[in-house]
Amino acid sequence: MTRNFKLTLAYDGSEFHGWQIQPDRPTIQGTLAEVIGRITGENVLPQGSGRTDAGVHAFAQVASVKLASPIPCKGLQNALNNSLPLSVRVIGVEEVGEEFHARHSAKAKTYRYRVYRGGICPPWQARYVHHDPYPMDEDAVMQAAEMVMGEHDFTSFAAADPDKAMREGDDPAAKHATNVRTVYRSAWRREGEEFVYEVRGNGFLHHMVRNLVGTFLLVGKGTLAVEDVKRILEARDRSAAGATARANGLWLVSVEY
Amino acid sequence: MTRNFKLTLAYDGSEFHGWQIQPDRPTIQGTLAEVIGRITGENVLPQGSGRTDAGVHAFAQVASVKLASPIPCKGLQNALNNSLPLSVRVIGVEEVGEEFHARHSAKAKTYRYRVYRGGICPPWQARYVHHDPYPMDEDAVMQAAEMVMGEHDFTSFAAADPDKAMREGDDPAAKHATNVRTVYRSAWRREGEEFVYEVRGNGFLHHMVRNLVGTFLLVGKGTLAVEDVKRILEARDRSAAGATARANGLWLVSVEY
Repeated sequence: MTRNFKLTLAYDGSEFHGWQIQPDRPTIQGTLAEVIGRITGENVLPQGSGRTDAGVHAFAQVASVKLASPIPCKGLQNALNNSLPLSVRVIGVEEVGEEFHARHSAKAKTYRYRVYRGGICPPWQARYVHHDPYPMDEDAVMQAAEMVMGEHDFTSFAAADPDKAMREGDDPAAKHATNVRTVYRSAWRREGEEFVYEVRGNGFLHHMVRNLVGTFLLVGKGTLAVEDVKRILEARDRSAAGATARANGLWLVSVEY
Repeated sequence: MTRNFKLTLAYDGSEFHGWQIQPDRPTIQGTLAEVIGRITGENVLPQGSGRTDAGVHAFAQVASVKLASPIPCKGLQNALNNSLPLSVRVIGVEEVGEEFHARHSAKAKTYRYRVYRGGICPPWQARYVHHDPYPMDEDAVMQAAEMVMGEHDFTSFAAADPDKAMREGDDPAAKHATNVRTVYRSAWRREGEEFVYEVRGNGFLHHMVRNLVGTFLLVGKGTLAVEDVKRILEARDRSAAGATARANGLWLVSVEY
């Protein structure tokens, strides 16, 4: 009989080619599978709540995996942390019902995007923030973010091939097979030298957070007006929105079930 | 006529083989010299306030360099930051009198050593702290640190070959050609999950801060008593002290002139 485990993971994505396993490239899913195999002798592929791109970090990504091993949760956590690189830590392990699936069971996710606004980015922050020291109308950026609150078709902010993104399952709500998502919170705030975006929703299309941020930052530069965000959303056309913001400022904060 | 520049540098030492230039290995001094050469066409070797070992970080290392270039200070700073890797930032440039030398003119230095005490070290901190989640008598460590305040012969805490260390000039006070140094502040404090040592003195022998920390931590483990630190100091014998603490918890905080 197999047991179903929920793993909560923190990672620095800088040196990984994203979450999803790939041949001959370090990925978080691949590294985790390899280490689980070494500990339990079982050849399994842990399922994440969604992919994170290369360079994206996680405070608390969630993965699920079924194992036959009788290992206690705390023992599994310790064994994983002893074998994983220091850039990936297992911050929680619990046994869950067999129906639990990290992606399918997710109800909501929260992402954060960190922009460093100071003139010189401290070297120890460079991997974790997007550095933009140039003039920016931060009030306009804050207003722009409010425009995407609520239920919308986010096609304009999806990666160019949304079918592909859904197939790859970067998204708890992908089972609905539409690009309609509900954003519960979408707000920028200042934290010292950082300008930080936080967004919570029932699901996110591939590249959606980075595309939203890229668009908000164009509003900050004056290239777009606050009202343009509404127009872009209604266009349901990826080419209407701004460029995809750099991956390394993005953090997966939490997944709710 | 040459002009004399004081450069203040912040760096993440993780991917460098320390400050001091070496053939075929990335060092901070070597990288800085190469970039200055590219900007000004001048073949110069900036002098640091002292070497930092591989993996040691700096909030504010100081270097001096003489250049014939008429470049303004702000222009030099911007040009350096545009060419240096993001792991090294020039946080200040000023023109100083010709007698200024980053090492010889230094009056005092402050170092910090960060120990992460939580059970799981966040991946984004792993490069910047020493992780020690095991039982530790932090009060005893604090008391041990007080024992080295004042003027002492620190031979017991110097690298095995102090002549070599002095020759290599890791130390403003090395001109005195003794192992006597004055420690003005030596104190541990708790900062959330971190236990942080800060030491300010008129100069430090090679590996002195890491050897002090290694010894204090042995007091925390109960391997040594607080009073042993005084005995070790008086022994003037390197073999009396604890092991050298890991480099990546060490930060050069500031250099005073």
